[in-house]
Amino acid sequence: MSRIAIVGCGVVGSSWALVFLRAGFEVVLFDAAPAARENAAAFVRAALADLRDQSMAGPDPVEQTIGRLSLAGSLEEAIAGATYVQESAPERVEIKRELYRTLDRLVPPNVVIGSSTSGLPASSFTEGLATARRCLVVHPINPPHLIPLVEIVPSPWTGASVMEEVTTLMRRIGQSPIRLTREINGFVVNRLQSAMLGEAFRLVEDGICTAAEVDAAVSNGLGLRWFFMGPFETIDLNAPTGIAEYCRNLGPMYQGLAKEQADPRAWSASLVGAVEAERRQATPAEGLALRRSWRDRCLAAFVAAKRRVLAEAAATPTEKDA
Amino acid sequence: MSRIAIVGCGVVGSSWALVFLRAGFEVVLFDAAPAARENAAAFVRAALADLRDQSMAGPDPVEQTIGRLSLAGSLEEAIAGATYVQESAPERVEIKRELYRTLDRLVPPNVVIGSSTSGLPASSFTEGLATARRCLVVHPINPPHLIPLVEIVPSPWTGASVMEEVTTLMRRIGQSPIRLTREINGFVVNRLQSAMLGEAFRLVEDGICTAAEVDAAVSNGLGLRWFFMGPFETIDLNAPTGIAEYCRNLGPMYQGLAKEQADPRAWSASLVGAVEAERRQATPAEGLALRRSWRDRCLAAFVAAKRRVLAEAAATPTEKDA
Repeated sequence: MSRIAIVGCGVVGSSWALVFLRAGFEVVLFDAAPAARENAAAFVRAALADLRDQSMAGPDPVEQTIGRLSLAGSLEEAIAGATYVQESAPERVEIKRELYRTLDRLVPPNVVIGSSTSGLPASSFTEGLATARRCLVVHPINPPHLIPLVEIVPSPWTGASVMEEVTTLMRRIGQSPIRLTREINGFVVNRLQSAMLGEAFRLVEDGICTAAEVDAAVSNGLGLRWFFMGPFETIDLNAPTGIAEYCRNLGPMYQGLAKEQADPRAWSASLVGAVEAERRQATPAEGLALRRSWRDRCLAAFVAAKRRVLAEAAATPTEKDA
Repeated sequence: MSRIAIVGCGVVGSSWALVFLRAGFEVVLFDAAPAARENAAAFVRAALADLRDQSMAGPDPVEQTIGRLSLAGSLEEAIAGATYVQESAPERVEIKRELYRTLDRLVPPNVVIGSSTSGLPASSFTEGLATARRCLVVHPINPPHLIPLVEIVPSPWTGASVMEEVTTLMRRIGQSPIRLTREINGFVVNRLQSAMLGEAFRLVEDGICTAAEVDAAVSNGLGLRWFFMGPFETIDLNAPTGIAEYCRNLGPMYQGLAKEQADPRAWSASLVGAVEAERRQATPAEGLALRRSWRDRCLAAFVAAKRRVLAEAAATPTEKDA
């Protein structure tokens, strides 16, 4: 039986636990703070109950799924017998370095260690370790029990077979992995988000529209297509013969815009302050927690709706429409 | 009774007709090509029938809604008695200039002319017209009967009251308007899309991942949140106290990425060719039409699901979750 060790039980580690549990794995949690382990277990129990309504809690009854979860009193105990380690420790390179030196001694032979880091390259905390070729970044989008994307990023010394093994594991638990060929700042997701945020802040700073209007441009416009097609498929379907025609027609326009956007700006205190003020009008500070639970409830419903609609659409080809 | 003239009945004009009709307006269509008028009427009839399943066809029976649609044999006939004109002519400035010179003579007093142009500033085809202060860009995202966002962009001489009037009209027909303060290349939507596409092509050109993996990063990751929150609200909810804290923590990382991304590149023929080849593997040329009908069917279902989920979420506040 496969047994997953989750090291670090904050928001990300807790959600990872849920992902592995509902896929049928045994999961053992460890966090240096005992309270964090207890909180994670409570989170998993509550989230599993919520997900049942969306058919996203896995095939087993909640009690049986929860029964596969255990809390380890020490890192040694968590790692012993693990077949995969998902490290979700705090995002500081000195913490990761120390942790990986310990993991390097403890981890059983051939076991892979994936890091949830959203920004640190694996090379920055695995160089010289005996286990280095079994270490890599396995970066989820928070929370992974609702958002399937996982970025798999090798360090220069990660083994090709390790990349394969983790890809297979991620698919098996229902996540959607992409594999970067090499380390790059921000990986793919945060680079795309960076491009979007850079222009979003630029539009507000230049007084073109409000932050709420930028948000509407995405949530009532671009985001409706990006929800189920990426940027490439979106434009591929927007010209009769596909993306090459689209680029012939609109490439020059985009090239012109790209030049205007090649203007990296720091987000000034006054700009951030203005956006913060606008956001606090929409959602006051004391309403943020409630808004987050609204977000997670909506996200679960949308992900469930997406699965249902895509399955129905795949099951009913409409040749007549073509 | 309000009567909308749609001038230019391609894909965009036809969808606009549907938007106004289902909102209860009378609509008169004109296109210089008689076949285009007939095609538009056929499209409206078919789409209304499809939308009924999603409760997006308006309150009236289909026959009654269709009964408010008429085809004009001439531009004069279309414009006479119109209370608003939505111009959706081909995207070439010389065509727009000539059309607007004619509209300038024909349009009744006080009637506003909104242009569907996705890229031409209104100042480029309305300068010097008697009606210039009543002309502006009212840019939909295609197709407007499924995607509610509308960009309202004034020329330097568009009247403030005209902006107000069109905003009110767009809200009344169920669209979601944003108002730019001034003309800017690409408006808001295509500037945001430009930022996204620029980085998407850069990642593929640099061999970091495939085009399909970029698409997955959005459709299985970022796009799930952007579907119902924009980029600002997304990061606002990703730090305990909101966006200012998020920017304090991650601003330096994004600033570093922005510098790497300040590298405007033309999309080379070989790069576009590689992405085109990858896309044609996923969807062969002969399958594009079928894939477009898949897209529109999915889009309608997702927009309907979004309305339902957001309405339910708003109706069931969960103070206990906060």
